[in-house]
Amino acid sequence: MAQRGRPRDAEADERILRVALGQLMEYGYAGFVVDKVAEQAGVAKTTLYRRWPTKDHLAVAVIARMQDDVAVPDTGNVRADLIDYVQQIALGLNRMRRAGRQHEADDLSAGVVAELVAAAARHPDTGVLVHAVFARRNELVLRLIDRARQRGALHPATDPGLLFDQLAGALYYRLLITGQPIDRSYAERLVNAALNGVLPLRES
Amino acid sequence: MAQRGRPRDAEADERILRVALGQLMEYGYAGFVVDKVAEQAGVAKTTLYRRWPTKDHLAVAVIARMQDDVAVPDTGNVRADLIDYVQQIALGLNRMRRAGRQHEADDLSAGVVAELVAAAARHPDTGVLVHAVFARRNELVLRLIDRARQRGALHPATDPGLLFDQLAGALYYRLLITGQPIDRSYAERLVNAALNGVLPLRES
Repeated sequence: MAQRGRPRDAEADERILRVALGQLMEYGYAGFVVDKVAEQAGVAKTTLYRRWPTKDHLAVAVIARMQDDVAVPDTGNVRADLIDYVQQIALGLNRMRRAGRQHEADDLSAGVVAELVAAAARHPDTGVLVHAVFARRNELVLRLIDRARQRGALHPATDPGLLFDQLAGALYYRLLITGQPIDRSYAERLVNAALNGVLPLRES
Repeated sequence: MAQRGRPRDAEADERILRVALGQLMEYGYAGFVVDKVAEQAGVAKTTLYRRWPTKDHLAVAVIARMQDDVAVPDTGNVRADLIDYVQQIALGLNRMRRAGRQHEADDLSAGVVAELVAAAARHPDTGVLVHAVFARRNELVLRLIDRARQRGALHPATDPGLLFDQLAGALYYRLLITGQPIDRSYAERLVNAALNGVLPLRES
């Protein structure tokens, strides 16, 4: 009898999500169609709909899967680790920004990410899923920051969530609101600014 | 003969935008209908469509108008001014978060803002408008930060855009991505964290 979580299901899920990621990137959100994913993955449509009832659900699962591919580094140098991680987020966002429009590399509109944000706002259950995906994922970075705080590499009063909001927030703000580019150099300057602050040096 | 920019047009625009803001807040994005705005404002639909060809264009104009209502303070105390301004942004975002759902005050989904972000991503001309609205508006805050830098209240190497991305970004990130609340206390802690940084105090 079929059981939840048995290996064959995990394999099928993995294959479906890989195909879904490919199609989301190739066709963008508007051209992302659950039936086409089922066809290319070689599974029955009903299997897919039972697991992810709508296109939004499947897209959120794809994003969760993408995030799991990004390693949270912990080399003991919190500045270097945060720069690395923020650069990886920027890379992922830039990939999604280009989804479905390979031939317009200069188009800085937010594409797939914006559509997911809107889906999350429109459908409360999708919103809950999106929030959970980010909470689960961000927890790893918050722990990295807190370990640095505990060993004295960051100020004892450091609020990990607040620091991470500043970093991830700046990237998403540029992607979604001002349409400005986010590149490796920006990610590095951002981490340095957030860690160092902007107060004038006090004379000792 | 009718001329662009004559007072009567400005008055009509003002009335239309006031009515549009009211309806956007009352009915949310899905229930926001250009024809109903024309009716309540007492202008011909054609007048309205000539000025704002789609619902998205009108919604962007409403946002621009809302932003003009928020004063950028400059008391000479950059920390207090930024806390004040960031609290005003948070207040505006929370109002828009509740648009169209007066009876679900605890619903933290992003509503109108998310729909606008998606519209900006979907239609390049709307994207250009949204980016321009924020660029024009943010310029005022960037100048405030730069004046503080010039008078020595902030470090000489301060990048105003980078600082503002961290502040506004954190608010939008919580609104659009993690669904966490943004209140006055959060706004204050955010400004303090961004200004102070998180490095341990160096012994002098």
